[in-house]
Amino acid sequence: MSNYPHQNPSGAGYPYGAPPPSSQSYPSAPYGAPPPPGQASPYAPVASPYGAPSAPPGAPNQSYGGYPPPAYGSPFAALTPSVFPPGTDPSVISCFQMADQDGSGFIDDKELQRALSSYNQSFSLRTVHLLIYLFTNTNTRKIGPKEFTQVFYSLQSWRAIFERFDRDRSGKIDTNELREALLSLGFSVSPVVLELLVSKFDKSGGKNKAIEYDNFIECCLTVKGLTEKFKEKDTSLSGSATFTYESFMLTVLPFLIA
Amino acid sequence: MSNYPHQNPSGAGYPYGAPPPSSQSYPSAPYGAPPPPGQASPYAPVASPYGAPSAPPGAPNQSYGGYPPPAYGSPFAALTPSVFPPGTDPSVISCFQMADQDGSGFIDDKELQRALSSYNQSFSLRTVHLLIYLFTNTNTRKIGPKEFTQVFYSLQSWRAIFERFDRDRSGKIDTNELREALLSLGFSVSPVVLELLVSKFDKSGGKNKAIEYDNFIECCLTVKGLTEKFKEKDTSLSGSATFTYESFMLTVLPFLIA
Repeated sequence: MSNYPHQNPSGAGYPYGAPPPSSQSYPSAPYGAPPPPGQASPYAPVASPYGAPSAPPGAPNQSYGGYPPPAYGSPFAALTPSVFPPGTDPSVISCFQMADQDGSGFIDDKELQRALSSYNQSFSLRTVHLLIYLFTNTNTRKIGPKEFTQVFYSLQSWRAIFERFDRDRSGKIDTNELREALLSLGFSVSPVVLELLVSKFDKSGGKNKAIEYDNFIECCLTVKGLTEKFKEKDTSLSGSATFTYESFMLTVLPFLIA
Repeated sequence: MSNYPHQNPSGAGYPYGAPPPSSQSYPSAPYGAPPPPGQASPYAPVASPYGAPSAPPGAPNQSYGGYPPPAYGSPFAALTPSVFPPGTDPSVISCFQMADQDGSGFIDDKELQRALSSYNQSFSLRTVHLLIYLFTNTNTRKIGPKEFTQVFYSLQSWRAIFERFDRDRSGKIDTNELREALLSLGFSVSPVVLELLVSKFDKSGGKNKAIEYDNFIECCLTVKGLTEKFKEKDTSLSGSATFTYESFMLTVLPFLIA
């Protein structure tokens, strides 16, 4: 694959290979709905998005589930080596070190899956791939200490949210509970998007109209990931965003099956 | 779910529930790459997209793999009953009728999967779900005679393309062959998108850098589906498209796991 340049040098032959627009060319007149009175941004409908009440030391402040900005045009960039943030829980460090048996400083998808399952969190490889993609912004399918710590604390926070809204302890949350859970994460989705999410992430294929924990995580990752990608393009926070064909494909494809 | 309206009546509380922009508000000055001389549209880089040389009678002309325009805001619309187009191959009709055991005029996802496998085409349920979504534009997970016929002829055409480009009869096509196959379908994707597609649809997780037949079909469906959705928003054919948050989510989510 090395003969494939990561950037299209001229655009010749690839009509979508144009450089991304400058922010100046962004349409200045928003046609999305203006935010309701008292609401600063259409993306922040609740007062404290990601406002986990008990952020442990070392957890990235105000960035639960946050991940670095994307590198459009280079989804195959190498992952930069990292270290554990100061104050990381020693059990998180030892969990990573057990998984990283060759001491490379990275763990791959299957190792991450095993490491998380030691905390009673069972995820499919595709959920793990989505986690890795969103926390590294690369397609490398491996993760370092910094990203592992972010994944760990984000999952802890999302687990708490799931348990808070699974009031009857059924192990599933229904449509209304999902709406509240997403709101508590700072995402206000329309009823039709909500219904689509439940139909997509309901293991019963839409019969139960309810989502189990692992699919809830995948649902949160998807909504958070797509919303963040959209926001990066919605530079004027108008609720609308313009994509080139290339940036649209590079935005969407990483969320598809892995 | 009946208490969830399919359209958000006021947008209150759902900042992204604004009506879609009119075409007038589309930015008139394209900042995408202009099409190369002699090329009418950035989406039609080859002379005859979908130009299957041997379209059988009854096959929808110029619409191999074509599907109706999307109904944003109503992905849960019911599927309209349909009939077989005049001239449909009798074996296609009998195949459908065998699958439709209760004579309802529709077959569901599992029945479609079985019906296609009788033609030696083995597909996962998620590929079948993607087929159904793209040929019905609904989330109903069932399909009528008209859509079945379209699916059948599209798969026949895509099978021929796969076999043409799988020159060494390995049952897989590599990155270059995929590029040529997509071009013959009318899609010119950049090297980085191509690489992302191969990494996504390669069953070996990127080791083989090659795609087998069933994943090739899913790859074609994905590229065709996403490109068509993008084109519907790119009304001036500039290579750029503007989405509201709502339309972005409703465009992308149906392509995610099912």
